[in-house]
Amino acid sequence: MPLPPPLMLTTGPVTAYPEVLAAMARPVVYDTDPAFQGFYEGVVEKARAALRLSNPPVILQGEAILGIEAAAAGLIRRDDVVLNLVSGVYGKGFGGWASRHGREVIELAVPYDAAIDPAAVAEALRRRPDIAVVSVCHLDTPSGTINPLAEIGAVVARHGGYMIVDAVSSFGGMDVHPEEVDADIFCASPSKCLGGTPGLTLLGVSERAWARIADNPDAPRASFLSLLDWRHAWRRDRPFPVTPSIPEIYGLDAALERYAAEGPEAVWARHALTARAARAGVRALGLELWPRSEAIAAPTATVFKLPAGISDEALRDRMRDRFGVLVSLGRRETAGKVLRLGHMGPAAQPVFAVTAIAALGAALRSLGLPAAAEAGVAAALAVIAGPASPTDDIPSSKASLGGNAALL
Amino acid sequence: MPLPPPLMLTTGPVTAYPEVLAAMARPVVYDTDPAFQGFYEGVVEKARAALRLSNPPVILQGEAILGIEAAAAGLIRRDDVVLNLVSGVYGKGFGGWASRHGREVIELAVPYDAAIDPAAVAEALRRRPDIAVVSVCHLDTPSGTINPLAEIGAVVARHGGYMIVDAVSSFGGMDVHPEEVDADIFCASPSKCLGGTPGLTLLGVSERAWARIADNPDAPRASFLSLLDWRHAWRRDRPFPVTPSIPEIYGLDAALERYAAEGPEAVWARHALTARAARAGVRALGLELWPRSEAIAAPTATVFKLPAGISDEALRDRMRDRFGVLVSLGRRETAGKVLRLGHMGPAAQPVFAVTAIAALGAALRSLGLPAAAEAGVAAALAVIAGPASPTDDIPSSKASLGGNAALL
Amino acid sequence: MPLPPPLMLTTGPVTAYPEVLAAMARPVVYDTDPAFQGFYEGVVEKARAALRLSNPPVILQGEAILGIEAAAAGLIRRDDVVLNLVSGVYGKGFGGWASRHGREVIELAVPYDAAIDPAAVAEALRRRPDIAVVSVCHLDTPSGTINPLAEIGAVVARHGGYMIVDAVSSFGGMDVHPEEVDADIFCASPSKCLGGTPGLTLLGVSERAWARIADNPDAPRASFLSLLDWRHAWRRDRPFPVTPSIPEIYGLDAALERYAAEGPEAVWARHALTARAARAGVRALGLELWPRSEAIAAPTATVFKLPAGISDEALRDRMRDRFGVLVSLGRRETAGKVLRLGHMGPAAQPVFAVTAIAALGAALRSLGLPAAAEAGVAAALAVIAGPASPTDDIPSSKASLGGNAALL
Amino acid sequence: MPLPPPLMLTTGPVTAYPEVLAAMARPVVYDTDPAFQGFYEGVVEKARAALRLSNPPVILQGEAILGIEAAAAGLIRRDDVVLNLVSGVYGKGFGGWASRHGREVIELAVPYDAAIDPAAVAEALRRRPDIAVVSVCHLDTPSGTINPLAEIGAVVARHGGYMIVDAVSSFGGMDVHPEEVDADIFCASPSKCLGGTPGLTLLGVSERAWARIADNPDAPRASFLSLLDWRHAWRRDRPFPVTPSIPEIYGLDAALERYAAEGPEAVWARHALTARAARAGVRALGLELWPRSEAIAAPTATVFKLPAGISDEALRDRMRDRFGVLVSLGRRETAGKVLRLGHMGPAAQPVFAVTAIAALGAALRSLGLPAAAEAGVAAALAVIAGPASPTDDIPSSKASLGGNAALL
Repeated sequence: MPLPPPLMLTTGPVTAYPEVLAAMARPVVYDTDPAFQGFYEGVVEKARAALRLSNPPVILQGEAILGIEAAAAGLIRRDDVVLNLVSGVYGKGFGGWASRHGREVIELAVPYDAAIDPAAVAEALRRRPDIAVVSVCHLDTPSGTINPLAEIGAVVARHGGYMIVDAVSSFGGMDVHPEEVDADIFCASPSKCLGGTPGLTLLGVSERAWARIADNPDAPRASFLSLLDWRHAWRRDRPFPVTPSIPEIYGLDAALERYAAEGPEAVWARHALTARAARAGVRALGLELWPRSEAIAAPTATVFKLPAGISDEALRDRMRDRFGVLVSLGRRETAGKVLRLGHMGPAAQPVFAVTAIAALGAALRSLGLPAAAEAGVAAALAVIAGPASPTDDIPSSKASLGGNAALL
Repeated sequence: MPLPPPLMLTTGPVTAYPEVLAAMARPVVYDTDPAFQGFYEGVVEKARAALRLSNPPVILQGEAILGIEAAAAGLIRRDDVVLNLVSGVYGKGFGGWASRHGREVIELAVPYDAAIDPAAVAEALRRRPDIAVVSVCHLDTPSGTINPLAEIGAVVARHGGYMIVDAVSSFGGMDVHPEEVDADIFCASPSKCLGGTPGLTLLGVSERAWARIADNPDAPRASFLSLLDWRHAWRRDRPFPVTPSIPEIYGLDAALERYAAEGPEAVWARHALTARAARAGVRALGLELWPRSEAIAAPTATVFKLPAGISDEALRDRMRDRFGVLVSLGRRETAGKVLRLGHMGPAAQPVFAVTAIAALGAALRSLGLPAAAEAGVAAALAVIAGPASPTDDIPSSKASLGGNAALL
Repeated sequence: MPLPPPLMLTTGPVTAYPEVLAAMARPVVYDTDPAFQGFYEGVVEKARAALRLSNPPVILQGEAILGIEAAAAGLIRRDDVVLNLVSGVYGKGFGGWASRHGREVIELAVPYDAAIDPAAVAEALRRRPDIAVVSVCHLDTPSGTINPLAEIGAVVARHGGYMIVDAVSSFGGMDVHPEEVDADIFCASPSKCLGGTPGLTLLGVSERAWARIADNPDAPRASFLSLLDWRHAWRRDRPFPVTPSIPEIYGLDAALERYAAEGPEAVWARHALTARAARAGVRALGLELWPRSEAIAAPTATVFKLPAGISDEALRDRMRDRFGVLVSLGRRETAGKVLRLGHMGPAAQPVFAVTAIAALGAALRSLGLPAAAEAGVAAALAVIAGPASPTDDIPSSKASLGGNAALL
Repeated sequence: MPLPPPLMLTTGPVTAYPEVLAAMARPVVYDTDPAFQGFYEGVVEKARAALRLSNPPVILQGEAILGIEAAAAGLIRRDDVVLNLVSGVYGKGFGGWASRHGREVIELAVPYDAAIDPAAVAEALRRRPDIAVVSVCHLDTPSGTINPLAEIGAVVARHGGYMIVDAVSSFGGMDVHPEEVDADIFCASPSKCLGGTPGLTLLGVSERAWARIADNPDAPRASFLSLLDWRHAWRRDRPFPVTPSIPEIYGLDAALERYAAEGPEAVWARHALTARAARAGVRALGLELWPRSEAIAAPTATVFKLPAGISDEALRDRMRDRFGVLVSLGRRETAGKVLRLGHMGPAAQPVFAVTAIAALGAALRSLGLPAAAEAGVAAALAVIAGPASPTDDIPSSKASLGGNAALL
């Protein structure tokens, strides 16, 4: 059986922090014992603080896709019109769940190398005042792009709609928090930028969303997909609806501790600097970024176009097998067209961007393709060496994306 | 925050084996990397061997209740009549899922201290030839009873029905395997008798069940509840439908390794001996077992009736806080009436039955109730010291339950 | 290969706390990196606090025997007369090292079931004013006895001598601290009552002892046995003399954290109660304790005499193989005469004393010997159930041992 | 407290393999229990196989320096003349221990950028037939050089002398084994190229060395420094002289398992390729290697000279703090003159050599010094991309070092 690659720069699952792995080895404690229930309440409080929520988040007992499915199933009523904002594969994919639960899904799509224009959202809502729910993927990793979430959230809030946000690949790696973007359900993951393990979803749910779900007769109850079952599970005096994934909770706790100890701003800056170095390196290698502008390029994943004459798998395999760096392929619409460098959690280290660029350049060359490997490395290093203050450039959901160049 | 109790003899989640905990600390590897995909294929093969299946089982990425819900959602068609066999809380609970997905649910119930009579099943099937699916909980922990699964399976097979088995609390702790009992879907858990962690379900699915699910237009697809999505996930050349809970897979692997290394027969004998010692101790203490006969008493959980004059929580808390042994309360219909001693995985050690009896006797006394603590301990010890060969008394789904005394 | 026993009640090495084991899995960090040096300084500070020292203790990079050998080699000068107090095997053993380094060793011995009389120490010092160093084992586990350390220390201090204390099996399990007993070198272990791992020694060294060692031309330097090499290693700005055992330091840190979090008094009370229950159980079984009085019986190990007609190995093996409890044999002078129940760290749980008594009684019976197993269990339980406040009975080096009955 | 650096390319302690870290978390088992004694025997057998010994090696319970000190103390008799071969700091250092135990130490030294000439050894032995013991450091990490060990061993064997080899930084990272080089004592470490933890020493001891030690009245006995105490500890029926460092043994077992699973030749090739890439990169950067020829450059550590105008600490800190790569400073005679890149165990990945060169080049530039960073990276990558078969270039103690250019 092949050995794992020495350096894993994937878009998820990602390398977990050592503190997380050590925590996974802690003994399983009976879930209704006060020792565990008290601990769990503490973990939820740490998650609440990290998400900057005013009410306790929910921890669902499965990987983030569970949270997204559960959000659709709980919040969307059978007579709902849903506006699904699509700027990539995961945004598109949400439409499937929206259709399953609502009456009609309107799709507002942009090419997958662009970002959603808040003005277009406003226009869509103006045309269809009956839209009840708006869904958006904040950072679509198959494209490596981010959407202007705060602006979109403000538009949806003015309309009075409910907004479901997939922030799985952004939360923890940049400055984004549910209440600051008017999200009603905000899905985050312990296993991406927090450097935890993939087995849980973190969900911020607004009080008005809770009320809507409770009123929704079709919202899952007594089901693995149920948000309601877990609403009060954080309380130490309430039993769990089903046995939680106890070691995953330990890992989440350690990931949240690490996040707070390093400092969220420092974590975001680390992600941003890594991505900037990666982008500079990619361009200097002579390759093209997939996002049509750097303003919308994700700080947690750098996606670039494959040069002509090489398959994605061949390049991925060469990088892995000869140069020890594992990267991710594209997915669905971007499959075969791109490779992706992940910068999440422990992998979000500027020096690893340099390594990735070096491996990429060398892999291209060893496959007979031209690549300015030295220039790529130099460009990545120049970013790291640069005079910029480390917090200059943290992407934020609160800041403007700087012009509409990238928007449709 | 209170410290965890030194000795956890609960009915689940249970203490995990040290090998499992150490495995949880292994690094997260990207799921589609050949290193992980090859490893995963190996784990599924080990699970197949443990389950004595002729086809690969499915690993669902959530605690066992997910597997049970998924089984109902996948196998039961909207026009199905389901016969739900009820001898306890979990058997009863399955009716809810059956109703959600089928047309009609017929319940064949016995008092919760008794076992299902296969003849009654045959009679029910004779009366309603349109019954398509039969569901049964093999070992209902809130009652600590087992049903004659092989006999029931034979009856259902003769009828041509599909049988869904909840073997969550029996598999790994006694001699029961899906194909030997004609189960079409067989739900097992890594976190009970295998001494793993609660974050996955193991499902044996017969080929005819797979065909039925594939034909069922309502069977979940593109959903966390989907069996179909995971059917081929075991193959190293197939991508995972969603990111698996990687550390949980490591833990499952370690649990299966341990099970094979100790030897299934030795593991079952250990569970059986622990339970026999516990039952002898309970009776000698002057307490009454909940199951109406020892022939149907579970080898993985000993349930006994509370004596008059004491609440379940008071006794549980006294055992825990003063005597260091954590046991489980009853659940739903048995709540307030019983306490439960778990004998699963690492907790299935005969000496811990003695400890439990000692703690129970002392707790009763310290609460002012009479208890023959010394006699209880002596009786438990006598079982362990007994001349019986260790494999004399392993409960098996294949053996008769020895008379109908316990059956309704 | 045989599986480890389910319950390990040995006198050392002992079961480590789960927090310790999880910490062992943390990544190795380069020892001179500021991240590790700062961490190390913190660990030494935690150890200083636990030992209630006014100066930083030394951590030697090997199991406690290394610390004891190093203490002898460093403190004892070649012209020294050493008074070695002998109440057991380890005390006796120190004489070998003392002879290796000093000019003359005077032995003050009592039978191994008794304790040293401080008045006899005073008399010995009066007779030989040239005694420079006094050595004593506080708690000799092969005998399960403790010496009146504070009183002995006061006598030695009045004489002006240097006192070396082996507190390996007492520190962390009872109220004993180096400065409170006037110890000049005080050897403690992470792997006994602290529930850590066996790979380090903790040493408290008084300032006058440091001065003496520094003046001793024979004191090891540039050696694994050197205290001097490590004197300043705690400082984050000083390099380590040799690479420290980094994971062991992680484990020690976790053990010290746990000790402080549970609270030293609570930990001592837990050890004391466990030992009292064990002693009561042993006596009620019809066996005899090895110590001639309970006043000198150790709170961390209960040693009892073998009944006639059985070998120590036979009884130990029966307890382990049939009843799942591993205990320790005697050692040297007590070998073949006793068995020993350890109550250290995670094993110091009152309920485990009950389990041990049950297993002991049953093992005796199954070997054909009379044993009042029920009475033994009842007596142990009665101690636990007893009305005594949990801190009533913590053995302390500061308290009188209550009369001279046990002294020679 | 500062966070650990993301990439640790030090000369030891080094990053441990994940398998090792997970093994460290396994529970402590009583050392004389058959479960542990059987396990220990198995570990010694694995170590024997890795060392290609015909008799069982000894595991000493402390970091490798303990093994070296113990070797000197055990093998060297008080009337011995020792020839100490010095080509670096650690070789020089052995002279201190040799003087402590022997009558006379003759030093055969070369400049620290050169290797020992076997002919010079032969000549030294010819001049002083009374030389009984020859000591040599195979790979002196402060210089990053290797000595022609097989040739030296052959010379010593012809003389009839005993040879002590410090192979701490070479064993496991290249093709060197004690019997193949006629070593009488061969000290290896779990924590360098095997990727284990620093808390043990592995020692190969020839039968004639055992005989000599047993005859040596000054050889340590009943001491932490004693080889004799541990000679038979590998046997499952022998007690340990003192408690072994149990988790370290688990870690060693995992490291040996990993070494065998990956395949020694593959491991050596990985180390060799990493070092070749590093050397090519260093030279292309415009820097000078410390070893005077590549033929004697170590495959496990690349040492290069500091350029003018920069302190070692400033460059090390810049590499770490800005570029995330931790490297080692020089030591004693090489301190302030060099930096060292470690390639040991998990750090021996060719891609990390590229990262190191990139970080080094960028750090130099950011400190205002010229550095051909791009060319350095390109050169390192070219080595990795090169057509050479992976086993072309494994340094071996058995092969000639290719001319005497590097020898004095």
